[in-house]
Amino acid sequence: MLPPCVIRTIPRPPADVASALAEQGVATVHEAQRQQGLMQPAIRSLLPGRRVCGPAVTALNHAGDNLMVHAALEVCQPGDVLVITAKTPCTDGMIGELLACSAKARGVAGIILDVGARDLTLLQEISLPVWARAVSAAGTAKATPGWVNVPVVCGGTTVRPGDLVVADDDGVVVVAHERATDVLAAARARTQKEESVRPRLEAGELSLDIYGFRKVLEAGGVRYYDSAEQALADAP
Amino acid sequence: MLPPCVIRTIPRPPADVASALAEQGVATVHEAQRQQGLMQPAIRSLLPGRRVCGPAVTALNHAGDNLMVHAALEVCQPGDVLVITAKTPCTDGMIGELLACSAKARGVAGIILDVGARDLTLLQEISLPVWARAVSAAGTAKATPGWVNVPVVCGGTTVRPGDLVVADDDGVVVVAHERATDVLAAARARTQKEESVRPRLEAGELSLDIYGFRKVLEAGGVRYYDSAEQALADAP
Amino acid sequence: MLPPCVIRTIPRPPADVASALAEQGVATVHEAQRQQGLMQPAIRSLLPGRRVCGPAVTALNHAGDNLMVHAALEVCQPGDVLVITAKTPCTDGMIGELLACSAKARGVAGIILDVGARDLTLLQEISLPVWARAVSAAGTAKATPGWVNVPVVCGGTTVRPGDLVVADDDGVVVVAHERATDVLAAARARTQKEESVRPRLEAGELSLDIYGFRKVLEAGGVRYYDSAEQALADAP
Amino acid sequence: MLPPCVIRTIPRPPADVASALAEQGVATVHEAQRQQGLMQPAIRSLLPGRRVCGPAVTALNHAGDNLMVHAALEVCQPGDVLVITAKTPCTDGMIGELLACSAKARGVAGIILDVGARDLTLLQEISLPVWARAVSAAGTAKATPGWVNVPVVCGGTTVRPGDLVVADDDGVVVVAHERATDVLAAARARTQKEESVRPRLEAGELSLDIYGFRKVLEAGGVRYYDSAEQALADAP
Amino acid sequence: MLPPCVIRTIPRPPADVASALAEQGVATVHEAQRQQGLMQPAIRSLLPGRRVCGPAVTALNHAGDNLMVHAALEVCQPGDVLVITAKTPCTDGMIGELLACSAKARGVAGIILDVGARDLTLLQEISLPVWARAVSAAGTAKATPGWVNVPVVCGGTTVRPGDLVVADDDGVVVVAHERATDVLAAARARTQKEESVRPRLEAGELSLDIYGFRKVLEAGGVRYYDSAEQALADAP
Amino acid sequence: MLPPCVIRTIPRPPADVASALAEQGVATVHEAQRQQGLMQPAIRSLLPGRRVCGPAVTALNHAGDNLMVHAALEVCQPGDVLVITAKTPCTDGMIGELLACSAKARGVAGIILDVGARDLTLLQEISLPVWARAVSAAGTAKATPGWVNVPVVCGGTTVRPGDLVVADDDGVVVVAHERATDVLAAARARTQKEESVRPRLEAGELSLDIYGFRKVLEAGGVRYYDSAEQALADAP
Repeated sequence: MLPPCVIRTIPRPPADVASALAEQGVATVHEAQRQQGLMQPAIRSLLPGRRVCGPAVTALNHAGDNLMVHAALEVCQPGDVLVITAKTPCTDGMIGELLACSAKARGVAGIILDVGARDLTLLQEISLPVWARAVSAAGTAKATPGWVNVPVVCGGTTVRPGDLVVADDDGVVVVAHERATDVLAAARARTQKEESVRPRLEAGELSLDIYGFRKVLEAGGVRYYDSAEQALADAP
Repeated sequence: MLPPCVIRTIPRPPADVASALAEQGVATVHEAQRQQGLMQPAIRSLLPGRRVCGPAVTALNHAGDNLMVHAALEVCQPGDVLVITAKTPCTDGMIGELLACSAKARGVAGIILDVGARDLTLLQEISLPVWARAVSAAGTAKATPGWVNVPVVCGGTTVRPGDLVVADDDGVVVVAHERATDVLAAARARTQKEESVRPRLEAGELSLDIYGFRKVLEAGGVRYYDSAEQALADAP
Repeated sequence: MLPPCVIRTIPRPPADVASALAEQGVATVHEAQRQQGLMQPAIRSLLPGRRVCGPAVTALNHAGDNLMVHAALEVCQPGDVLVITAKTPCTDGMIGELLACSAKARGVAGIILDVGARDLTLLQEISLPVWARAVSAAGTAKATPGWVNVPVVCGGTTVRPGDLVVADDDGVVVVAHERATDVLAAARARTQKEESVRPRLEAGELSLDIYGFRKVLEAGGVRYYDSAEQALADAP
Repeated sequence: MLPPCVIRTIPRPPADVASALAEQGVATVHEAQRQQGLMQPAIRSLLPGRRVCGPAVTALNHAGDNLMVHAALEVCQPGDVLVITAKTPCTDGMIGELLACSAKARGVAGIILDVGARDLTLLQEISLPVWARAVSAAGTAKATPGWVNVPVVCGGTTVRPGDLVVADDDGVVVVAHERATDVLAAARARTQKEESVRPRLEAGELSLDIYGFRKVLEAGGVRYYDSAEQALADAP
Repeated sequence: MLPPCVIRTIPRPPADVASALAEQGVATVHEAQRQQGLMQPAIRSLLPGRRVCGPAVTALNHAGDNLMVHAALEVCQPGDVLVITAKTPCTDGMIGELLACSAKARGVAGIILDVGARDLTLLQEISLPVWARAVSAAGTAKATPGWVNVPVVCGGTTVRPGDLVVADDDGVVVVAHERATDVLAAARARTQKEESVRPRLEAGELSLDIYGFRKVLEAGGVRYYDSAEQALADAP
Repeated sequence: MLPPCVIRTIPRPPADVASALAEQGVATVHEAQRQQGLMQPAIRSLLPGRRVCGPAVTALNHAGDNLMVHAALEVCQPGDVLVITAKTPCTDGMIGELLACSAKARGVAGIILDVGARDLTLLQEISLPVWARAVSAAGTAKATPGWVNVPVVCGGTTVRPGDLVVADDDGVVVVAHERATDVLAAARARTQKEESVRPRLEAGELSLDIYGFRKVLEAGGVRYYDSAEQALADAP
């Protein structure tokens, strides 16, 4: 509800926490914070194989206009993740060759777009990782004022300026900046637990036994049959 | 309509029939069985360049819950294809790192999901081919009982346990297990015919001539004009 | 409104104009012609990393029938781009192994489909670049007459026979054949301008300053604050 | 995998069972058969306020061709529900004025289309209830043979000839013909139970208390707080 | 490719041709012009039960900006149909209370939007029929110049200024203005033919017999069986 | 990031502010708060013709599980609007006959669902207005704990408990509870202004003149031509 404005400063969690969360990956971080903060699958990686994490600088634009992306770059610091949204659904390419060069020059770690991106060849070339809702060569006007560093919704998830944005091939998850250290600890604990289980699974043990899911099946009344015929004969 | 249950055994066509169908590829197999059994294009390959074929082990889950995937792995045999569905639309990642390791350990040939998959990096690493409706880091509950090895609908197509599932970059097609040998024969015949035509097309001959489509055009009243002007002048 | 027909000849802009437009790329060409003629993002590249441009040969088919694609190949010349559409929405694979071989043999530069494509592995193998709305192993009937080289709508954009079709990883844009030389000149001017700006951006200068967007922000009443608290305190 | 054919006879459960299931409604029948057999929400009612149930006569067509709908009408009997599908995704109007008149004349109780319908004004006029994936004025060819009364998938659900199809404003559910009487009994039991609960809910009692969900919340570790501040203070 | 402009005059077919086409309805007109010119099903009626036909005044806007709708109203005459499009996908409400009042005052017969509409309650109140891709309360900027009365693509169909736009509950179809009289004649012929068939269908005769489709089935090799068992026994 | 919990109390703006905002309608309220807070068009009215406004009670569920809707009803007060969301995309019917009766009994003013609703006939009968993403007869489990009265994202918009939710046929808009009085004042001012303009538009005056858009067209370089031919002749 603020009038159009640019907020210059955002909270930034320690850089080592961000890089450690990037290593944990989106799926683990998401589980570690009680399955919250995940963007919808529609936001997908355009440069497969990359993992980033950094504090969010947010740009809230009007559909068809990317004026505030230009304004947002000024307040980005190295390691930040630029989160670009529009007030109404839009697939136009709000980031292209020149803005990508500029983002790279300012040390932006990655870009998340609830809208479209373009100049894919260049993004590959300069290795700037981008997650977007669409690829579109359509450029935009630069005429209507919006907001930089206000809370936004991207991929169905609330992102506040300074929240850590973790992104990899599985998608994008948002970590509240106040909770970054706690979430990292929980993610590490989870990873450790998974690592102890993985060799057992690789050796052929079943998750049914390791995690005790047999009891859940039993409690739920799941019966076992040797054949479909047997099951049908037994059906009430 | 069966109560929640696990059927332990499924019919399995001979392994050499399955591997021969994999070689034929989805497009040819689909034509060979009168264009039936193809899953919708929404089910797409997450590891391009792979071809698999094996008997289906099916898991029917509730939206947001993958308990029955754990149960299904117990009854999988090497070479099986695991087909994972939910009773209502769901994009959650029902297969992730641990289940993928377990599937690999048990020799599962590939996984088809009418829902989402996650931990893409690991899937690449362990080279477990997956076809899915979505990529999502979202994990699921393991609380609500469902079914293993009952007939399911995946990608708009009925899959019965033991039916052969053929999957490659073109999509996924299902072959009734009773008909596997016949379909293989028909596919081979079709391939042979195509192979005889291909050199002629590569030499510049036209399908119009090779297949007799000129007569179809003529019978349908298609006229030829040298220019748009000529056509307009001739229009009734 | 013409009855089903094949128009044999189309206007073809000079080949060097086409190849020069391919080099400029879709995003630049789109801007150079006042942001017109871009296909919707749903038409995406199936062979990433390719750039083509050539005059359009159009085939307008009935849903589920690709008879006119066969007829269209006869009137294609080396360097042409084949644009395949259907009168109503359809995802069937209207181009497959044999038609792809035939297209390659006739020198077709690329294929754009408002419908589906199949035999992806072969398309890769013979390096025939394809942009399509869907991938589907479903083949089609060859029974119902349609049109070759009439104006069509593909990806939400009108394509007239002979119009230049430029396609790369960013999508597909259509250039009116009468305007090809003018658009090329405008694209080159634009590229030159961007090239002069790029080093300045790479050196850390801001687009806000280079393009004078600060004045737009000011005129739009955008205020700057050091913190969210400060902004809230100032809100009317 | 059968070659194109028409099966003339289907099993038909007793008419009073069908009409009783129609009264129970889709939501109740779906629950009564363990939440199975529901079509996807994309299949929606075009004539709100109607409820039907009858045995399915199925027509499996090629995309863009409704030849087999014509063939299916011949084997329909009064009270049947006509289920129209296509082998690949299609939105063309496969039922229109003339077929609707014909269906009405033959006593068809309702029509379910995995494709499109047209002539909505007439459907209203003659009060023939239709559930469809799309509304489209596009007509179709009548050239390519398909199947009548083979099992099909409609709205993501398998429908076998003779299965009862129940449809109302909530959607469409399929009941296996062998189980129709059992499902009706289960639906009635469920309705009775709901009817006993409804007055209590209308009087202000909570489902938490009536169904014992408080224990589920407690077992799941859900805590109660008087305010958000209190909750945050308590967060681990 | 024209620079932003307003073309003041358009061709207008005779008003009685337009009103006669409205009576024929979308489905019949579409068939009468060889199944061409139909908009996609995504463009749907927001005021069911209305039929309109009039010459198109077109407005081509930027996403998120409806400036040219204001300019278009000035050149509308009573009976015209206003066709509103955007260069890239957009769901914003480009027509709302005030523009609707203005359109009504100027005698606009109906509005077709490839984008969104809003103020539905008022549209009902003043009985201005609208067909749109979306309903959205989102308003737009009025800042970026576009085009009035240039050819546009709406609902996947090319619309030239002055072309007749026929719209009813089945959708929207476009008739080339030069062909309006011919199409009307063809539509009337078709209607007459259908009217002669309808009583026969209502009396229970089959389209199989009236239209000779039995021969098509026979030619396509469709076999008839009394039961599924019989068909399976006969399968090759 | 809070563990699963129920927050009992929410801020509630004065009831007369809520009812006054309902009268203003969604489109006006959205404009009045600088075009912010609008849900996506996918959330649509299931009972056309209704307008509601009340403070949000939020329920955040797991996909396929509506346990927290039961918990939320206990903390609802007359006039509240229940906002039901799921952590990942889901179309299951999370509100049905019994919950609707219960909501009605507790005085809930309306229900907004980012998921599905069912028992439409009953909703009509008891006149409980509902806005939802889908209609689905699918019921859900009641097994997995979630949250009541934490901030959620619904229809792409953040909703905090106690924020006013305004809903009508144009969609749903969210007003921050702290700003409700200010937004109401701005909406009233806007309505007054529109009411003064409406008679002028109804009398045939143009928005071009009333709002000064002619200058915007002129500044943007829009030229006027009497015909398309004249425009083409003038094109650079």
